[in-house]
Amino acid sequence: MRKHSLIVGGAGFIGTNLVKKLLSIGNLVTVIDDLSRGRKEFLDAYVDQKEFKFIEFDVSFSCDDAFNIATKFCQIDEVWHLAANSDIPAGVLNPIVDLKNTFMTTFEVLRSMKKFNVKTIHFASSSAIYGDLGQVAITENIGPLQPISNYGAMKLASEAQISAACESYLDRANIFRFPNVVGVPATHGVILDFVFKLLKNNNELNVLGDGTQQKSYLHVSDLIDAMLLIIKHQVDKKMNVVNIGPIDEGVTVNWIANQVINKINPNALIIYGIGNKGWVGDVPRFIYSTELLQSFGWKPKLGSSEAVIKAIDEIILKS
Amino acid sequence: MRKHSLIVGGAGFIGTNLVKKLLSIGNLVTVIDDLSRGRKEFLDAYVDQKEFKFIEFDVSFSCDDAFNIATKFCQIDEVWHLAANSDIPAGVLNPIVDLKNTFMTTFEVLRSMKKFNVKTIHFASSSAIYGDLGQVAITENIGPLQPISNYGAMKLASEAQISAACESYLDRANIFRFPNVVGVPATHGVILDFVFKLLKNNNELNVLGDGTQQKSYLHVSDLIDAMLLIIKHQVDKKMNVVNIGPIDEGVTVNWIANQVINKINPNALIIYGIGNKGWVGDVPRFIYSTELLQSFGWKPKLGSSEAVIKAIDEIILKS
Repeated sequence: MRKHSLIVGGAGFIGTNLVKKLLSIGNLVTVIDDLSRGRKEFLDAYVDQKEFKFIEFDVSFSCDDAFNIATKFCQIDEVWHLAANSDIPAGVLNPIVDLKNTFMTTFEVLRSMKKFNVKTIHFASSSAIYGDLGQVAITENIGPLQPISNYGAMKLASEAQISAACESYLDRANIFRFPNVVGVPATHGVILDFVFKLLKNNNELNVLGDGTQQKSYLHVSDLIDAMLLIIKHQVDKKMNVVNIGPIDEGVTVNWIANQVINKINPNALIIYGIGNKGWVGDVPRFIYSTELLQSFGWKPKLGSSEAVIKAIDEIILKS
Repeated sequence: MRKHSLIVGGAGFIGTNLVKKLLSIGNLVTVIDDLSRGRKEFLDAYVDQKEFKFIEFDVSFSCDDAFNIATKFCQIDEVWHLAANSDIPAGVLNPIVDLKNTFMTTFEVLRSMKKFNVKTIHFASSSAIYGDLGQVAITENIGPLQPISNYGAMKLASEAQISAACESYLDRANIFRFPNVVGVPATHGVILDFVFKLLKNNNELNVLGDGTQQKSYLHVSDLIDAMLLIIKHQVDKKMNVVNIGPIDEGVTVNWIANQVINKINPNALIIYGIGNKGWVGDVPRFIYSTELLQSFGWKPKLGSSEAVIKAIDEIILKS
């Protein structure tokens, strides 16, 4: 019997990479997406396959109707919930963006899972739930959790709601705390931003902040592999929370800016802003522990610098 | 210049005790309450005072109109946000109860605070945000935070949203993590439940669970004193999170049941249920650290057993 995976938010950057992977290992796949950030053309390669179904639907008010359609296709074995606002500054300006797209999607997905008796959820959480803990190694069990963006707050709220659901009707929740993920088809992020800016104006590149923000980056191919490994790993808890990220300490925004201009116009001028935060709610630097994930035998194929360089090439190729 | 305190959820059990205290120290006080759990008669003693204003309003969709009325009374200096669902089992059965009453109240209070430029919030959080951490001392910075009730989840979500607001527009957030609080005018809780049951049927008392659940209880008078002490205590963080609770390890449900029958009918039969949880989402026993609060020089006037006995007397007197 084939496993039927329902991917909420499956037409976005990570979702479409996941669709490809899950189809390749023989799953039936249904994507629900409102196409607010995702794009239907990202799924063009799969729409004619009988193992694949796409449902255009906004799940933030109720997703019973979409679950109903998906269930008629085949009984749902697991839900991947990737739907969220991915524009952190937009959420800081207007908290309703993250309320609706990041939290209410989770709330309604859980309600439908209870109703349709689906007991397994895989959830795309984020390192943003940790807030700014300074220079300590951020392990999964660290506290306090004081997110500094509405995005981080609504991801933490989602985890909390899933945790309560584990106590009452879920059998398993895998909570993946994502790092910065790069690759294609990117819909946002620093690399896409830099490439777009430079393709528009070859002569200069404006950088938010002073460029010293250092972050680690994971290529989407490594992210997908990590999630599938975590799911297979036996744990005796219903709620299984794992940081996903590269093992290195990352690269600076300044370094990324230089890589991008080297590819497009090495003579372009980089113009820096002030301060080590790109925006309110941006965490300038943190040490993200992936020891738990490594203990499962995982290591990324690409480090932060390789992932960024690969993503730059992929994004330029698609632009 | 008198301080103007706006108390959202000020017509409930803790709110009305807070109103009394804040008026007694010379503050102007406005209460906003939708009277879903609170009662207007709890505020009868104050409605004719010119220092007091009551606004009946449901803040869970928007509270701009209520803030507008309160601001015309006098510029708001601080918000006390106490509004929440207090019926944990109801929230487990229907997550919308806690979404609306526990989280959306916070979300909308924050939106109005930003709009009306009010920079200080005092928030009634809960030990329920910690979930079931087993036999470790629960300090404010502990992790992981995996609440097991929707109530706990939506309190954690509220804290997270306040944390993000501290990064962008609040000057100060005092987060009080409440224990079980007892006293009058109680609107829910084990003591009220037992007294009501016994007054209805003098001969027997049905207890949820096997009665071995042990919890610590704080009298509302000590809670109010603790909050005012915390507010006065200088800290250099915007987000100031403090556990409030008695210093002892608490009393069992069985002990409380016996105290109640002793007061009403010592010959009544106590009938126990099964298991050490009263309901899904009930945390059977935990060690709640109040070391931080004690370091501010606080100690409760009443221990758990004294608080419970006093509350039984108060509740019987009012019944």
